[in-house]
Amino acid sequence: MITPVILCGGNGTRLWPRSRAVKPKPFLPLVGDETLFEAALSRAGDRSMFNAPMIVTGKGHLCHVEAQLTGAQDAKVLVEPAARNTAAAIALAALRLPEEAVMLVCPSDHHIGDAGGFIRAAQEAALLARQGWLVAFGIVATAPETGFGYVKRGEAIPGSGGYKVDRFVEKPDLERAMQFLGEGTYSWNGGIFAFRAGDYLRELDQHRPDIAAAVREAVARGTEEGRCFHPDATLFGAVPSESIDYAVMEKTAHAAVVPATMAWSDIGNWHALWEARDTDENGNCVIGQAELVNCRNVLVESDGAHVSLIGLQDTIVVVDGGDVMVTSVSEVQKVGKLRGAVHQ
Amino acid sequence: MITPVILCGGNGTRLWPRSRAVKPKPFLPLVGDETLFEAALSRAGDRSMFNAPMIVTGKGHLCHVEAQLTGAQDAKVLVEPAARNTAAAIALAALRLPEEAVMLVCPSDHHIGDAGGFIRAAQEAALLARQGWLVAFGIVATAPETGFGYVKRGEAIPGSGGYKVDRFVEKPDLERAMQFLGEGTYSWNGGIFAFRAGDYLRELDQHRPDIAAAVREAVARGTEEGRCFHPDATLFGAVPSESIDYAVMEKTAHAAVVPATMAWSDIGNWHALWEARDTDENGNCVIGQAELVNCRNVLVESDGAHVSLIGLQDTIVVVDGGDVMVTSVSEVQKVGKLRGAVHQ
Repeated sequence: MITPVILCGGNGTRLWPRSRAVKPKPFLPLVGDETLFEAALSRAGDRSMFNAPMIVTGKGHLCHVEAQLTGAQDAKVLVEPAARNTAAAIALAALRLPEEAVMLVCPSDHHIGDAGGFIRAAQEAALLARQGWLVAFGIVATAPETGFGYVKRGEAIPGSGGYKVDRFVEKPDLERAMQFLGEGTYSWNGGIFAFRAGDYLRELDQHRPDIAAAVREAVARGTEEGRCFHPDATLFGAVPSESIDYAVMEKTAHAAVVPATMAWSDIGNWHALWEARDTDENGNCVIGQAELVNCRNVLVESDGAHVSLIGLQDTIVVVDGGDVMVTSVSEVQKVGKLRGAVHQ
Repeated sequence: MITPVILCGGNGTRLWPRSRAVKPKPFLPLVGDETLFEAALSRAGDRSMFNAPMIVTGKGHLCHVEAQLTGAQDAKVLVEPAARNTAAAIALAALRLPEEAVMLVCPSDHHIGDAGGFIRAAQEAALLARQGWLVAFGIVATAPETGFGYVKRGEAIPGSGGYKVDRFVEKPDLERAMQFLGEGTYSWNGGIFAFRAGDYLRELDQHRPDIAAAVREAVARGTEEGRCFHPDATLFGAVPSESIDYAVMEKTAHAAVVPATMAWSDIGNWHALWEARDTDENGNCVIGQAELVNCRNVLVESDGAHVSLIGLQDTIVVVDGGDVMVTSVSEVQKVGKLRGAVHQ
């Protein structure tokens, strides 16, 4: 059995103004009818393979989690009083589980088009986790993306579909990304990990004892409230903020990677969302009321206003409440830097 | 003395969604702080040269006229029960004036950047009108516009700055428009005319006696109400709809043209409005709250929503209430055909 640990949060800048700090990406129905969070729960919904999920979320987003948990009423919710990055969030979950529990850590701000591919990779990863490995999903790279970290695989681990990790690589420039794509031994690090709770805590104790100790204290003084667990706010606020990649995965001698082919997208910007969605014969995708005249490869999303577009190509138009955002696809990465996105 | 006859109306499609059938172009502050209607009143505001103006408007727009008449409290208002085009609108005004009155017919959906040029042309036109000419303003053409009618001048009228009209030409195709521009004897017909009331009515009687008779009947049965005059609604509704150009100017043997250089624009679409307005060093013009990142030659106008734009060139973005309209400049003529503009 595998225990899904679903991380929910985000600051809602890159898909602004649709996603916002008060309601970031996981809680929006960005692809299809389900929200990304609901889809993450659904993917791990088979109770013959997965235990009840453990949700880690910020207290500001608890309302969204509660509202969208209908498909997983058996879930436990760990409420972070403040965001202290993934090393702490995962430690929090690990400390609330038996040492032998195999955790499958899943961010909920990603879209996975092929749930079967996800399940196959999860089973492979769980197998290795039970042997003591800390396993990263290596998402088969399909483009020289410069926005992701990469994992380079080393030698194969006998009797499994996995590999030892040769090394983790931070976001590369385009030249290196193209080189990685050509070599074939690099895959994207999508932030999905599997390991036993005890193994993760042991590695964290070894490489970042400060984080491990601080989370332990916050949990020891925490309080339970129905299905929610609240670590002590003051103590948790004092936990050093670090990613699992820096704190553990890049340092452990037991890192493994399993290849995952599952139509994954981090939906890291509006163009990625356009790519994940169905489009019409002109490449346009419309959500909301809109009239498009002579437009190609346009994404329109409006929560109310009627949108009329003439003669646009490769353009994103988003209306959300009192905000209208229009960007060319080629400069879509600048959305998160807009004043409206930064000063929410 | 000259009596300004200011025509107010329009169907509000080409500058949709900012202009709408219920509040078309003349009543909006499109360039500067004054509305186009207020600017038309101001241009004819010198009471040593101009009599109190006569406004012709539809009953649906009377509220806007009343609200914007503060600069011309002595104005008379002729209220059309239905729009029957300019031949009838001008006949209505002519019938409410002494025969000898020199009318200066001015549409109020145009922008005139050089009021001095307007006054000079008006004086020239009035001089010819007093000699019995029906005078069109010939707006000196600066581009091969295909959206305007043209006037070709004939021989000079001695002792004046004007010319006999050789002929009026309907909207030409681009090739002919370029030819006109090259020849130098063609100017734009901006719909501004000067003549004595009696001369206009005599010509209308001769060339379109049906229109003349029908308007006379509607006026005979009309009612006065303060500064407003209402022709009989049923009778006026039966008046044939025709433009002054077709009904009179193209047919009369007494047509003259005076050259007018006055920074005129019909503001016939959003791009023309962009051209009439001041822009910043990147060619952008912003009305309302907006953030522009790497944009050039962009016009933004929002009546409320905050607009964020990234990487756009030669683009118009308009937000008005629940409507958002974005068009490339090159296809701006299609705005009036949008469903929202047509089915208001």
